[in-house]
Amino acid sequence: MSTVGHLINGESITTAERTQDVFNPSTGEVNKQVALASKETVEEAIAAAQAAFPEWRNTPAAKRARIMFRFKQLLEENADKICAMIGEEHGKISHDAAGELTRGIENVEYACYAPELLKGEYSKNVGPEIDSWSEMQPLGVVAGITPFNFPAMVPLWMYPAAIVCGNCFVLKPSERDPSSTLFIAELLHEAGLPAGVMNVVNGDKEAVDTLLEDTRVKAVSFVGSTPIAEYIYTTATSNGKRCQALGGAKNHAIIMPDADMDNAVNQLLGAAFGSSGERCMALSVAVAVGDAAADALVSKMKEAMQPLKVGAFSDSSNDFGPVITEAAQHKVNGCIDSAEAQGATVVVDGRNPDVAGFAGGFFVGATLIDNVTPEMDSYKEEIFGPVLQVVRVDTMQEAMDLIDAHEYGNGTCIFTRDGEAARYFTDNIQVGMVGVNVPLPVPVSYHSFGGWKRSLFGDLHAYGPDAIKFYTRRKTITQRWPSAGVREGVSFSFPS
Amino acid sequence: MSTVGHLINGESITTAERTQDVFNPSTGEVNKQVALASKETVEEAIAAAQAAFPEWRNTPAAKRARIMFRFKQLLEENADKICAMIGEEHGKISHDAAGELTRGIENVEYACYAPELLKGEYSKNVGPEIDSWSEMQPLGVVAGITPFNFPAMVPLWMYPAAIVCGNCFVLKPSERDPSSTLFIAELLHEAGLPAGVMNVVNGDKEAVDTLLEDTRVKAVSFVGSTPIAEYIYTTATSNGKRCQALGGAKNHAIIMPDADMDNAVNQLLGAAFGSSGERCMALSVAVAVGDAAADALVSKMKEAMQPLKVGAFSDSSNDFGPVITEAAQHKVNGCIDSAEAQGATVVVDGRNPDVAGFAGGFFVGATLIDNVTPEMDSYKEEIFGPVLQVVRVDTMQEAMDLIDAHEYGNGTCIFTRDGEAARYFTDNIQVGMVGVNVPLPVPVSYHSFGGWKRSLFGDLHAYGPDAIKFYTRRKTITQRWPSAGVREGVSFSFPS
Amino acid sequence: MSTVGHLINGESITTAERTQDVFNPSTGEVNKQVALASKETVEEAIAAAQAAFPEWRNTPAAKRARIMFRFKQLLEENADKICAMIGEEHGKISHDAAGELTRGIENVEYACYAPELLKGEYSKNVGPEIDSWSEMQPLGVVAGITPFNFPAMVPLWMYPAAIVCGNCFVLKPSERDPSSTLFIAELLHEAGLPAGVMNVVNGDKEAVDTLLEDTRVKAVSFVGSTPIAEYIYTTATSNGKRCQALGGAKNHAIIMPDADMDNAVNQLLGAAFGSSGERCMALSVAVAVGDAAADALVSKMKEAMQPLKVGAFSDSSNDFGPVITEAAQHKVNGCIDSAEAQGATVVVDGRNPDVAGFAGGFFVGATLIDNVTPEMDSYKEEIFGPVLQVVRVDTMQEAMDLIDAHEYGNGTCIFTRDGEAARYFTDNIQVGMVGVNVPLPVPVSYHSFGGWKRSLFGDLHAYGPDAIKFYTRRKTITQRWPSAGVREGVSFSFPS
Amino acid sequence: MSTVGHLINGESITTAERTQDVFNPSTGEVNKQVALASKETVEEAIAAAQAAFPEWRNTPAAKRARIMFRFKQLLEENADKICAMIGEEHGKISHDAAGELTRGIENVEYACYAPELLKGEYSKNVGPEIDSWSEMQPLGVVAGITPFNFPAMVPLWMYPAAIVCGNCFVLKPSERDPSSTLFIAELLHEAGLPAGVMNVVNGDKEAVDTLLEDTRVKAVSFVGSTPIAEYIYTTATSNGKRCQALGGAKNHAIIMPDADMDNAVNQLLGAAFGSSGERCMALSVAVAVGDAAADALVSKMKEAMQPLKVGAFSDSSNDFGPVITEAAQHKVNGCIDSAEAQGATVVVDGRNPDVAGFAGGFFVGATLIDNVTPEMDSYKEEIFGPVLQVVRVDTMQEAMDLIDAHEYGNGTCIFTRDGEAARYFTDNIQVGMVGVNVPLPVPVSYHSFGGWKRSLFGDLHAYGPDAIKFYTRRKTITQRWPSAGVREGVSFSFPS
Repeated sequence: MSTVGHLINGESITTAERTQDVFNPSTGEVNKQVALASKETVEEAIAAAQAAFPEWRNTPAAKRARIMFRFKQLLEENADKICAMIGEEHGKISHDAAGELTRGIENVEYACYAPELLKGEYSKNVGPEIDSWSEMQPLGVVAGITPFNFPAMVPLWMYPAAIVCGNCFVLKPSERDPSSTLFIAELLHEAGLPAGVMNVVNGDKEAVDTLLEDTRVKAVSFVGSTPIAEYIYTTATSNGKRCQALGGAKNHAIIMPDADMDNAVNQLLGAAFGSSGERCMALSVAVAVGDAAADALVSKMKEAMQPLKVGAFSDSSNDFGPVITEAAQHKVNGCIDSAEAQGATVVVDGRNPDVAGFAGGFFVGATLIDNVTPEMDSYKEEIFGPVLQVVRVDTMQEAMDLIDAHEYGNGTCIFTRDGEAARYFTDNIQVGMVGVNVPLPVPVSYHSFGGWKRSLFGDLHAYGPDAIKFYTRRKTITQRWPSAGVREGVSFSFPS
Repeated sequence: MSTVGHLINGESITTAERTQDVFNPSTGEVNKQVALASKETVEEAIAAAQAAFPEWRNTPAAKRARIMFRFKQLLEENADKICAMIGEEHGKISHDAAGELTRGIENVEYACYAPELLKGEYSKNVGPEIDSWSEMQPLGVVAGITPFNFPAMVPLWMYPAAIVCGNCFVLKPSERDPSSTLFIAELLHEAGLPAGVMNVVNGDKEAVDTLLEDTRVKAVSFVGSTPIAEYIYTTATSNGKRCQALGGAKNHAIIMPDADMDNAVNQLLGAAFGSSGERCMALSVAVAVGDAAADALVSKMKEAMQPLKVGAFSDSSNDFGPVITEAAQHKVNGCIDSAEAQGATVVVDGRNPDVAGFAGGFFVGATLIDNVTPEMDSYKEEIFGPVLQVVRVDTMQEAMDLIDAHEYGNGTCIFTRDGEAARYFTDNIQVGMVGVNVPLPVPVSYHSFGGWKRSLFGDLHAYGPDAIKFYTRRKTITQRWPSAGVREGVSFSFPS
Repeated sequence: MSTVGHLINGESITTAERTQDVFNPSTGEVNKQVALASKETVEEAIAAAQAAFPEWRNTPAAKRARIMFRFKQLLEENADKICAMIGEEHGKISHDAAGELTRGIENVEYACYAPELLKGEYSKNVGPEIDSWSEMQPLGVVAGITPFNFPAMVPLWMYPAAIVCGNCFVLKPSERDPSSTLFIAELLHEAGLPAGVMNVVNGDKEAVDTLLEDTRVKAVSFVGSTPIAEYIYTTATSNGKRCQALGGAKNHAIIMPDADMDNAVNQLLGAAFGSSGERCMALSVAVAVGDAAADALVSKMKEAMQPLKVGAFSDSSNDFGPVITEAAQHKVNGCIDSAEAQGATVVVDGRNPDVAGFAGGFFVGATLIDNVTPEMDSYKEEIFGPVLQVVRVDTMQEAMDLIDAHEYGNGTCIFTRDGEAARYFTDNIQVGMVGVNVPLPVPVSYHSFGGWKRSLFGDLHAYGPDAIKFYTRRKTITQRWPSAGVREGVSFSFPS
Repeated sequence: MSTVGHLINGESITTAERTQDVFNPSTGEVNKQVALASKETVEEAIAAAQAAFPEWRNTPAAKRARIMFRFKQLLEENADKICAMIGEEHGKISHDAAGELTRGIENVEYACYAPELLKGEYSKNVGPEIDSWSEMQPLGVVAGITPFNFPAMVPLWMYPAAIVCGNCFVLKPSERDPSSTLFIAELLHEAGLPAGVMNVVNGDKEAVDTLLEDTRVKAVSFVGSTPIAEYIYTTATSNGKRCQALGGAKNHAIIMPDADMDNAVNQLLGAAFGSSGERCMALSVAVAVGDAAADALVSKMKEAMQPLKVGAFSDSSNDFGPVITEAAQHKVNGCIDSAEAQGATVVVDGRNPDVAGFAGGFFVGATLIDNVTPEMDSYKEEIFGPVLQVVRVDTMQEAMDLIDAHEYGNGTCIFTRDGEAARYFTDNIQVGMVGVNVPLPVPVSYHSFGGWKRSLFGDLHAYGPDAIKFYTRRKTITQRWPSAGVREGVSFSFPS
């Protein structure tokens, strides 16, 4: 059985004291092991990054960016291979993996803009013959800790930006689906990255804590669940690092009575069930304003869900695949059970779907639950499965109050064709990423990604312009040249 | 005896359970008391800010800015009064207080630019007929905690920017010299600020901890010493707030052999002894490269220091005034004692100066110490007094290594006329604010202020562009309007 | 009878070889003369500007901006006086003059942002140890030529921005209402502007041509009618100057069937008749989509127009005043005549209104004409009077085609509540300033003003960000410092 | 004999009524013809561009940019082929052609940043519930006219930026060396560009005038000599187009007495003789301050020039190749003759070099002329050949006055190690592109290229940020949504 190892100082390292199983969620089988890095191994990666820093920081930004140009090209050439790796370990269907990869590549494109993004501000004559300017200098060694649900994309939110700014990087990806992440990092080296600038260590809490404690690590980016995000943020900042930690979500869509309902239903299908709902931007609650809208939504949704197909990653005609683990499968089923027990109506029931030939897979089918209320456990928790819950309210304000009362504030959306309703919603809702008739309002790579409330700890969002600020520190220079001297020929000595 | 109180919801509050003496450092006398806010009083201020927020956030930025325009005007009209207040409680001479106030007003000017600074980024067609833009929305209630050494300026680094972004503010200024701070906040109300938007509470740790713990406070800005800065940062971030905490400094100037020595000496006088050295940007160490430069520096410096006059704030012919407390006076004297004891040469001795008529004042005269080494206690600590120490090194690299080895990284400067030396220095030195022939490289108000290493905790600097980022949070909207409908006349109903 | 003269090198000059009458359009009387500058006088102004340039360009931007801060304050303090001057010579009612002045002051506020706006871009390491940055340097002497309809505002679009960038200015305002313009320029000097930086010359074609031909004038900003704009642009550019020339307009509003009709009518009143329609952004054509919308519009509009009062500038209860000249009055009346003759329906007829006590005034009342078609002369021409014409079309596309077919492309607006219709309109319409439910979509001072097609000649718009580009020229510096030399102690000589 | 044709609407067109010889300047032979487009052919290209515009403008910027990413890749893969084409028709050696191409590719990289560069400014609440934003929309059809000296690079300054902004393009390149330009345009189509977006027409004045007169062409970018630039600018602007026209140059370097002379000499070699001096940024005049500096410069330069080799493009050991035509060769020789005749000292004489085996080539060797004065004809004219002239002055101010007195203001440079001298020079010199110890201060692709005085007509520079402004026009939208309506459930109708 093969072992997925680390990538340190440009070298693959597969020996490991400790390892862990890597499952194929479509079959429930274990085909690989992943190495779990010890403190020493992580420190080796940090040391490699530290050693590579002085030369890398002095490499012109345009040259660093040119490696990103080649990286983009290699990612495109190897897309099928990467998608297969993702599918096998995560379970997502190839079209979904391709979508993930495309989004990741867009972050590499953004990194290509580095020479533009790293421009400082120059002020002539801040005082008489005094000039001042700012430089956005790299921090040194920075770390990323990423989740299982986007093994290609989320790491690409982080290290292309960090590296192109002149930093060196240590990535600790999810140990559940490590292969694509590692392979992509190898492609970056093929693109010309010097050894040590980018390092990958697989691991668990030991690796994470090493990154949080080592004083050489200057910044930590994290994406995962809220309790861990909070732990990461508190620990990293207490250790004097800058940190951005992205946590959980519960994303609501408001369905207004004037919405184009066919369009809304069509959009919700992908937003709720795509990638089995295992996205921090998954749309998991539809709030219908008025019973007429709710009835129309539920009936059209039910019909639209009929053809949806859950199944193994290897069949690209499937709409979505298994959830990540057996435990996740039980959790999702449990949420549906509890909603039902607490009085909600399970309109379409995805529990225990029949996936021919894949009895061991961790499957849950697309599920629609009506008449959900805020008091239900299934409403409070982040389910992270292919379950769309419908809550019925009487007014738009009630819908907004519901959203604002939730601890998370990642994404949300309104379906309407009314300009005023959209403007009121986007202005006032306490959520960081807001869609108007766009149910997955993930910002494009040249804007930044981040929720509000307990969905993000830190002051700068992920990727886009905020990432450039996060991965650099400001140096402000104030300069005056004194007496004329050489210019007026007073005091020069001719060099021998 | 009068009591300096609080300003909450537009009202002056002078009743207080607990109070503390306010000294006149030029005489050593106590003429006033300052109220120390209880938890309840601070919560009242927070509640007032919270209540004022909804309307204030909806006030157009240009209108908010217009209050800042009037505020600037009132500050200029009341400059003499403010400077007298500063002088009496802090001890600084009127020309120095005027300098502080001017710098503060420049931050108000920057706040006037709000409509420009708050522009979001608009992207047409991020996808087919999908648009996306960012809005920089205010956070809600934010707090500032400020030090004694700039009672007018440092608060003005914070709240004009915070308020003009649409936030409401609670300021906890230094309890040592509270009058000017309070008076300035009153002027802001005279300029038209609605009640509750800006609140001032005087107090001690109880007030600080209330601000750090209250969940309604979304962000904390702090300026003070490094141990407190670290406490503030760790506590605030652990409580889920964003925080920027600026701490101590030990600012070095490198004197290169090719420096224009007369200019350097002239610059150092003000940078080392101005405001009695009680500035986080005070230049307290001169690192001379080569004995020739060192000898020239010390001899010219000694001569230039002769006419310097320490004395009471009320005599504007004095160059600088007392230090803030008797304890501070003892500490500074102790540093000079220990340098002497550990082998340094006290070239000009400012201990126990004779200030006629002000025997009770907390005075220390300008002091020059040569042959200081990094091992001495006086080198390691932040003295915060009118003491310039000279360290002698052989090379520029040695000088830079010394600076980089220090725990602080606030400001630094090089004196040279050589372009290459300046460029190498500004590029590589591990310090956030760097001067070339400018010994106090405080960034102008339209750049940002911040040190590196243990001089600043957080990822965004104070005032200038970074302040706008710190006091706002990004919301990203993604918008698509569905089928043509009304435009094509398909489905509209004429409003009755 | 008094003579309005020039302001050259900080001095008032009232002697003149040639003069022209200045009318009070509310009475038809002549109370003043305006001096018409000869070629020599204009050249004197240019020479004064040229002489003031070297010192002014070296004045720090923050200091230049501080004069604008004081200027704003003086404008506010003198608002009533300025409005009275405008009213007497232009005819507009005080509330309208106050609106103009406020808009003008907002441009002064924008000029206050200069330190932010003039920041260049700084790139570290464009090559190994090579840095590059841009500086936005002033041009030298620049000129402005402005129209009668906004004697305060339009000049303030130009010279505050030009001057704060470090240029020196020669303004040739309209000779019809020169007093407020001149007085405002005097206030700028009272605010602290050095003599020669800002100069005003009243005059006619001789003055204009001198400005266009003199090689010391580097740039020309113009606002007026399209034929003159084209002449100015062609002449100035052929003489090697940069030029922006804003011309005429014919601004249409589309009234969609789903519009909030009461709101639309309310908005149109001010947009069509305010300032007697003598605004380049006046809304002069309403295009109603569908007869239902058209009928509702016309009937509600007719009713809403009943209380409108035309009269002398001195009575602030009037809604609008006279047009500028007797010739203008005849022209507007002629347009109404021709529309009627060509088959349109004059619903509300403003010809020859009865204004008690002001028989000699140049008045035209608010006029509404229905059933106008694109072939009519009144549709083709810019009427520049208080006349709203209604065109009826069947579809929104037809309405847009109409707008795009017109030679002008200054402003336009759509009334709808439908997000999709608004987005399609704003995206595709060939007009530079577009409103959604905003009939006078004049950009705020921190955006830029400019039409498309034959409404603007040049590539940069007026005021706002574009003005800063227009009034500066880019200098790009690329810098490398060679061998270490001084830094490594190889080749320095100690200064004696 | 083959004919180089046009590329219109994605199709190669080689039939032509008129043709012209294309020379190989290394041999003097004619191997090809180039088609000269008639008015009709150019109009066909314009029509193709116009037809392609509506769809291309609606293509998301990120998608347009992705074609530029592929274009860059194809240019890199075809670099050798392109360099050979350039060499054969222009004469430059492969290393020089490779340098040109690299610079061109950097402009393609900049075009890849389009999504970032095209962001508009979004202002929330410019008034109560009124928002405003700007969109930078494409112009439509734009044209470029480019010179022989950089057949690959200069076109790449223009069309990648223009196209990525959403415009369609018609390029009229130099008819002297058309092959590489055409081939590169074909690669852009291979990269996925839709037909009609980019068109190439070869031609002469007939083609140029058609582009200048056709009303469908909205903007013209030109690079060439100053008399033609002025003609282009005057004609295009008179026809209502925006235009930027870059003309001639006479670039001076000041050699200060404290300069690192070996470095200066080394830099000057490439800057003066590279590409046979046929660059608008070629360094053709060295102004030495003081005879000591002059003598050192001339003697070191003379020595350094000994190994320089002029010869055919095909031998990559040559330092530079022939000039473009026999006429150019005669002109350059004539300039050397006249300098000699007027009293200058020809230190190194490049007239009539012996290039074995290439007797028919248009060669001029590297030439150094000392004691040149501003009155000499050779000083006044742009020689555009491998000739470096030395002027001797006594002071730096004298050197600067000389530069400022010249009609051109393209590039200039100072050699010094003194910070103050460099700052004074860069601040005050009347030249658009300034180097400090960098003799060819061509801005990198993410800054903009442009001279001052008669070196550039127009207000925006070429490539970089200014190009984005030049190739877009600002549209400002102001939006308010009226009564709550749908949001409050008052007036909606449920869609059937």
